[in-house]
Amino acid sequence: MDILNTTLKKITALDHALMLETQKRLDSLTKPQGSLGRLEELAKQITGITREKNPHLSRKVIFTLAADHGVTEEKVSAFPQEVTAQMVNNFLAGGAGINVLAKHAGAKVIVADMGVACNLTKKKGLISKKIASGTHNMAKTAAMSRDQAIRALETGIEIFEDEFKQGLDIIGTGEMGIGNTTASSAVTAVLTCHAVKEVTGRGTGIDDAALIHKITVIEKALKANKPDEGDPIDVLAKVGGFEIGGIAGIILAAAAHKIPVIIDGFNSGAAALIAYKLQPLAKEYMIASHESVEKGHAVILREIGLHPLLNLGLRLGEGTGAALALPLVEASIKILTQMASFESAKVSQRSPQ
Amino acid sequence: MDILNTTLKKITALDHALMLETQKRLDSLTKPQGSLGRLEELAKQITGITREKNPHLSRKVIFTLAADHGVTEEKVSAFPQEVTAQMVNNFLAGGAGINVLAKHAGAKVIVADMGVACNLTKKKGLISKKIASGTHNMAKTAAMSRDQAIRALETGIEIFEDEFKQGLDIIGTGEMGIGNTTASSAVTAVLTCHAVKEVTGRGTGIDDAALIHKITVIEKALKANKPDEGDPIDVLAKVGGFEIGGIAGIILAAAAHKIPVIIDGFNSGAAALIAYKLQPLAKEYMIASHESVEKGHAVILREIGLHPLLNLGLRLGEGTGAALALPLVEASIKILTQMASFESAKVSQRSPQ
Repeated sequence: MDILNTTLKKITALDHALMLETQKRLDSLTKPQGSLGRLEELAKQITGITREKNPHLSRKVIFTLAADHGVTEEKVSAFPQEVTAQMVNNFLAGGAGINVLAKHAGAKVIVADMGVACNLTKKKGLISKKIASGTHNMAKTAAMSRDQAIRALETGIEIFEDEFKQGLDIIGTGEMGIGNTTASSAVTAVLTCHAVKEVTGRGTGIDDAALIHKITVIEKALKANKPDEGDPIDVLAKVGGFEIGGIAGIILAAAAHKIPVIIDGFNSGAAALIAYKLQPLAKEYMIASHESVEKGHAVILREIGLHPLLNLGLRLGEGTGAALALPLVEASIKILTQMASFESAKVSQRSPQ
Repeated sequence: MDILNTTLKKITALDHALMLETQKRLDSLTKPQGSLGRLEELAKQITGITREKNPHLSRKVIFTLAADHGVTEEKVSAFPQEVTAQMVNNFLAGGAGINVLAKHAGAKVIVADMGVACNLTKKKGLISKKIASGTHNMAKTAAMSRDQAIRALETGIEIFEDEFKQGLDIIGTGEMGIGNTTASSAVTAVLTCHAVKEVTGRGTGIDDAALIHKITVIEKALKANKPDEGDPIDVLAKVGGFEIGGIAGIILAAAAHKIPVIIDGFNSGAAALIAYKLQPLAKEYMIASHESVEKGHAVILREIGLHPLLNLGLRLGEGTGAALALPLVEASIKILTQMASFESAKVSQRSPQ
């Protein structure tokens, strides 16, 4: 609990004076004021986060955390549980969506086992942080103990800090875990006070009957566990997942170390929600990459107060949306640092009206 | 007229058989079917356009066309006319938004003078294709002659083809011209049968009173010139602009040569609308990069049937939105050509439901 508390205390508000200065600089560049819209907001946010007048975003990392979910016993997913481990091997071999998109964005992928159900062969590049071989079936009992929930959060902090020591400018979050949209819907329902059916979608692609069943399973889990909506750690323990806790820890650590963090889709969003409820200031360090097809995601974004950069009908996870948004964030800083000013380019300012 | 007619005749439908094959390939990759949303649609479209199973998008060009507008006499813009020429020099010096964003996307910027009002010093990189020193004031008379309108279209085709000979895989469009949102609103009002006020916005940032004045000027221009809504060349001649005609020509030439074309914002959209009205099949070669703040843009996108990739509150033009969308289009092809399949990665397929 010490690591978590120290991290939470290190998170402060952004440098709003520098952000104002950044806006003035943006207004001096050869373009109508505000004409680059969200890009200008991003540039301001990044200077406010990093406390750098001219931030560099060269060292980019996507953290993809994997874990299994006991609730798959209830047949809530279109894919069998073994796919989690198989996809971890796919990540390590470089064949998954996140590998292709992270490479395209010039980012490294860090793959961590937070609680995959089977023993993964030790392979180069795999960070082994298994808390248990999957969570318990939340429809019957708590997904994990409170101690395990804290360990998941602190493990996320450790994973971030190990990488931070090697140098890091911006990160993205991602995950893999068959059954994890079931956990994320449960977390979202509790922490945003929404009915389960309002925050539950088709995950990897279940049909209508399976969706109704999934909603029933989540309702059963909430009834069985009674998670305390005022205690995010209790919610994570009772209906969350190891990778969700790990990502929440990574987000908090990024905020504590003044590193911008691009949040992927629904499962990363559930983790962001836990981070936000533990420390509302963490929100200022978050960039929402996209709005997922998974309906609970829009509810999360609204609750935290984030505005997604992309709306491309994505629902893959792994960090793919974060990787796709990365070039936009970099573009915002290049605008700030590389464009000519009206003065330097000898371009006339607007006429008085 | 021969160059234009030959180009229009060369535009054919996409290769729909190959697009079906691409969808099957996408479904075999290690991700839930359809989970990469718009990225999957883009990959299909690009194979359909290029007729290549594994398209390469390495040679990327943004065409930024500049011209002046006689209607600036009516004080429709927040910036003085001299800014068009000053910004051309800024493009050539590499200090504008489009330079920074095109470089970020790995694209070359081609700058052409289609009709800037003053004589630009001959500089390296400037393509001089001046049709006249700005259009006439459309509030009083036709912006240009029918012959000039055809020349603008055919000049765009030539500019594209000169670059195409050197090798080209994908292009984006952009423009610069103080007063050109006034022309684009007029073109949009006529070609989409909308009231002027429904398609007219603040351009570079005029206030409420200036906006009302701008609408009145456009209404006056339509009354004075009576452009024929069934004849896109007549509309271009009477209320268009040289850069708008040039971009329409570039779009048609790209479609004729089976090259995907990323359309920037409102002014590029007005050009796309003219291209679409001259040859509806050209639409299949277009990718809408973003939805501009300029309200007429949404009307254009709806009329053509395009769905923008980004909604970032942009209103700069120059090709900046096209440059920002370029990495997404490239990502779609990398997904198609670099991801592992369920079979190759030994990942289990979905369970029967």
